[in-house]
Amino acid sequence: MRQRQLFAPTLREMPAEAEAVSHRWMVKGGFIRQLASGVYSFLPLGRKVLRSVETIIREEMERAGAQEMLLSALQPAELLQQSGRYDMYGQDLFRLNDRNGREFVLGPTHEEVITSLIQQEITSYRKLPVTLYQIQTKFRDERRPRFGLLRGREFIMKDAYSFDTDWDGLARHYDAMYEAYHRIFTRCGIAFRAVEADAGAIGGEGGTHEFMAFSESGEDIIVSCESCGYAANLEKAESMLPAATDESNSNVGTMASCVKFHTPGWKTIEQLVQSVGCGAEHIVKTLIYMADGQPTAVLVRGDHEANETKIKNLLGAETVELADAATVQALTGSPAGFAGPVGLAAPLLVDQHVGAMKEAITGANELDYHLKHVVPGRDFTAHLTGDLRNVQEGDDCPHCGNKLSTIRGIEIGHVFKLDSRYSGKLGATFVDAAGKEQTFVMGCYGIGVTRLMAAIIEQNQDEHGMIWPKSIAPYQVHIIVMSMQDDTQRETALKLYEELRSAGIEVLLDDRDERPGVKLKDADLIGLPLRVVVGKAIAEGRVELKARTGTVEQVPAEQVIGQIREKLLS
Amino acid sequence: MRQRQLFAPTLREMPAEAEAVSHRWMVKGGFIRQLASGVYSFLPLGRKVLRSVETIIREEMERAGAQEMLLSALQPAELLQQSGRYDMYGQDLFRLNDRNGREFVLGPTHEEVITSLIQQEITSYRKLPVTLYQIQTKFRDERRPRFGLLRGREFIMKDAYSFDTDWDGLARHYDAMYEAYHRIFTRCGIAFRAVEADAGAIGGEGGTHEFMAFSESGEDIIVSCESCGYAANLEKAESMLPAATDESNSNVGTMASCVKFHTPGWKTIEQLVQSVGCGAEHIVKTLIYMADGQPTAVLVRGDHEANETKIKNLLGAETVELADAATVQALTGSPAGFAGPVGLAAPLLVDQHVGAMKEAITGANELDYHLKHVVPGRDFTAHLTGDLRNVQEGDDCPHCGNKLSTIRGIEIGHVFKLDSRYSGKLGATFVDAAGKEQTFVMGCYGIGVTRLMAAIIEQNQDEHGMIWPKSIAPYQVHIIVMSMQDDTQRETALKLYEELRSAGIEVLLDDRDERPGVKLKDADLIGLPLRVVVGKAIAEGRVELKARTGTVEQVPAEQVIGQIREKLLS
Repeated sequence: MRQRQLFAPTLREMPAEAEAVSHRWMVKGGFIRQLASGVYSFLPLGRKVLRSVETIIREEMERAGAQEMLLSALQPAELLQQSGRYDMYGQDLFRLNDRNGREFVLGPTHEEVITSLIQQEITSYRKLPVTLYQIQTKFRDERRPRFGLLRGREFIMKDAYSFDTDWDGLARHYDAMYEAYHRIFTRCGIAFRAVEADAGAIGGEGGTHEFMAFSESGEDIIVSCESCGYAANLEKAESMLPAATDESNSNVGTMASCVKFHTPGWKTIEQLVQSVGCGAEHIVKTLIYMADGQPTAVLVRGDHEANETKIKNLLGAETVELADAATVQALTGSPAGFAGPVGLAAPLLVDQHVGAMKEAITGANELDYHLKHVVPGRDFTAHLTGDLRNVQEGDDCPHCGNKLSTIRGIEIGHVFKLDSRYSGKLGATFVDAAGKEQTFVMGCYGIGVTRLMAAIIEQNQDEHGMIWPKSIAPYQVHIIVMSMQDDTQRETALKLYEELRSAGIEVLLDDRDERPGVKLKDADLIGLPLRVVVGKAIAEGRVELKARTGTVEQVPAEQVIGQIREKLLS
Repeated sequence: MRQRQLFAPTLREMPAEAEAVSHRWMVKGGFIRQLASGVYSFLPLGRKVLRSVETIIREEMERAGAQEMLLSALQPAELLQQSGRYDMYGQDLFRLNDRNGREFVLGPTHEEVITSLIQQEITSYRKLPVTLYQIQTKFRDERRPRFGLLRGREFIMKDAYSFDTDWDGLARHYDAMYEAYHRIFTRCGIAFRAVEADAGAIGGEGGTHEFMAFSESGEDIIVSCESCGYAANLEKAESMLPAATDESNSNVGTMASCVKFHTPGWKTIEQLVQSVGCGAEHIVKTLIYMADGQPTAVLVRGDHEANETKIKNLLGAETVELADAATVQALTGSPAGFAGPVGLAAPLLVDQHVGAMKEAITGANELDYHLKHVVPGRDFTAHLTGDLRNVQEGDDCPHCGNKLSTIRGIEIGHVFKLDSRYSGKLGATFVDAAGKEQTFVMGCYGIGVTRLMAAIIEQNQDEHGMIWPKSIAPYQVHIIVMSMQDDTQRETALKLYEELRSAGIEVLLDDRDERPGVKLKDADLIGLPLRVVVGKAIAEGRVELKARTGTVEQVPAEQVIGQIREKLLS
């Protein structure tokens, strides 16, 4: 491609609105543009990268025995009502009515559509198993679209669905996809890790793994143990409950009863710690949540963070969100910051670390007052106790007891053992070998294709721009003519360009009438793997060859193709 | 691919709901399934065909110098409001609000989005010209989705947009696309013709051609002249106005004045012709339309059909539709069937054939009465006169005067010289070489990808099923094992299957435990170009080789790959 003709509007300034580094570089490099919040246009360079990623995914899906199909974006709302996702997704679903008033949603994924299709078409175990996949556009009306392609409202996914007669078959297909995902992400040049995860809105009881790309700008936290290899995302990660201290909880009842004390304006844990002079681990936070519409109090230690996924799972609730100020006031009789478990008229969900406390400071359900000497089990009774907190750096591994560490990551893939989560709700059955009706055993497997593209950049960039892995670079080689006015330079570059193209190598030729500095800066920004600079040294028959992050080599012009070939193969 | 594993649920019975032959075969053959009215799922065989068509389109677009991009389905409603298409498309647009109440539409095409993108990114003539294309999903909430993929509500289009500094550049890009379309459709094995067309809702003043696939199930009519090569679609086609008869219109005023006569219940042209005993060509139909909300009378001869596109264009109106019964009654004082131009309080649009009539029978604007001896120009005055009728088989060619013929067709492509239709409305300008601000000169170019797939089947099928052209067949060769229980048959077939695959040929191996009759029937239905039947003749070392529509040849097994190669290359 001649860069003179390429529609790749690079920017001189760093785009101010872009939050994530991948977003900044892709906008600055002319790969993407924003049309609306969370909605992007892919310009030619961006489209080319996407196509390369798609090709890798297709090859590995076919290799794993999955067959490509294509489902529609429009989905009848009834289907999602049947599965329960219509309500569960809430405002995250884009909904619309057609001219006849029939309600549709724009598919966030396709479990219901594919289940209903298979239900109609497959009646016997003889036609099983089958795994189908598509690369298709998905829609989610995110509350806070951000970070460019990392969290968009319209995005491309590869989603696959497996249908089996039994759990063993599902396990085999799950493993095949798990392996395929490893190959895909490895081929895309990304550093990642598969971690245990929570099934979330997709659901399913059978287990699930997320594939996490390591990245500082990731919205997820990966918890892992160097020692035994345990890895999970923060939503799911567990830790070992520390052994009770020697001042154990056995002396409940021998303590003085709890005492109210004045805490004027001390609403936060930090203020209490400073003013009272105790550690945050001696304080209990009482958080008021609405769980499926019911006020519920969640108790975690002052130095811990509540984990909404764990709360949801312990309750078996569909939605859990922090209550608003009015609800807190009505329930506790005081503004937020002074809630406490003693005498509170709401179910108490108690984190196990709180349950293990000897005594605690809690809110008094009264403005500007807290209680001390509050003893769990004596002064309040847990409705449910369990693991309700986020694991923290340095916690003990639940499997081997060694220290856990945390790192940020981007979820680029997710595999689910759905079992009968959808087939059951939609009544999708087949007849087994014994003539008995059985529910399809399903798995589903997703890759965020556009997000993956962004994650690759998050990991592969420096202060000058993007550094594309060879496997998905929009072009492999960037030829730069330092002066288009110089006949020798221009002609050498053109000849090289044609020769590389004939050799089947994708080349971008910078034949623009720009200053050398602009061209080299743009080349760093766009980040193709290899660069050939045709400049003054051509008088001595030499050109410069340089990998995006390597050092410059002076190479005789007639040897450059051979060297490029070698470097691209290595 | 092993057919045992392929998800291609063929049906025994012809699907009752399918109206078009392509729809019937694709459903019966397991290529597609309907999810909702006008919304389809592409199963693996259908997806493979689509991908082949997409590949051909991509290759020819790149060859024509177009660069691939990808725009979003979600489009801010404001953009279409600026261009005027928001109102013009009316109920055909799918509209939705996001969680913050911002209105979006699902893109019916992308003129506004691309114009707004180019407006932001290209400020100078130096960056022009540029042609961008995408293969992307489009949405139109059709009043009457039908004929399967021929008229869907969610469908795939290739849409391209060119931006030039001037009209000459546009003409060059238009020609390049015109040529590319010829190559694409030829490679897809379809019989087609480019015809002059009306620009419709896309708009543009500069001329436009439709690419029409010949087909009985087409919703469009192609008018063409064998003699001079003139071809246009019915909306646009013109014919030569016949020379005035010797009883010319010069004797206006020497006739008796018009006379009311009783026509009890004679509402239709047929009833008048029968009862009055005159030819339909002596009658004038007075049709009441609403043109941009204003009642307007359109006069065409009784043996002619009014052409709404021509009416719209003559008026410069955005919408034209037949008035409802109440409006007709209010305007004419009588029910439909008795409207006439004499004394009518509405603008009269008069077809030129009516203007050339010596005298006519018209409605009397009174129930059960008509007028005779009505003389155009004396008894009523045209507000506007022009070509307002559909051309008919046997009319005279407007260019050479020879007879025109008509044939049905399916619109598979459309190229438009938009000029400044969108860039003007959106204020999209660049600075030219002289430093002057200029409006981008645009063209747009569409191919209905999913519709093209259906059109190919409309032309390539027989009473047994589909007949895929080699270039886009889901697989090139179908190997059928007559009995999977026969070791020699099974092993020969498997060996052949592996050898063909190694040779890079796409093969489907029917290894199902079905009866031979079922397999051969399915093979005809699916319609792959070449079929190899491995049956009893393998005992003598022979297999059967057959093109989908050819005769069976007995071929020594060891020669079959060579022969297949030859046939695929031919």
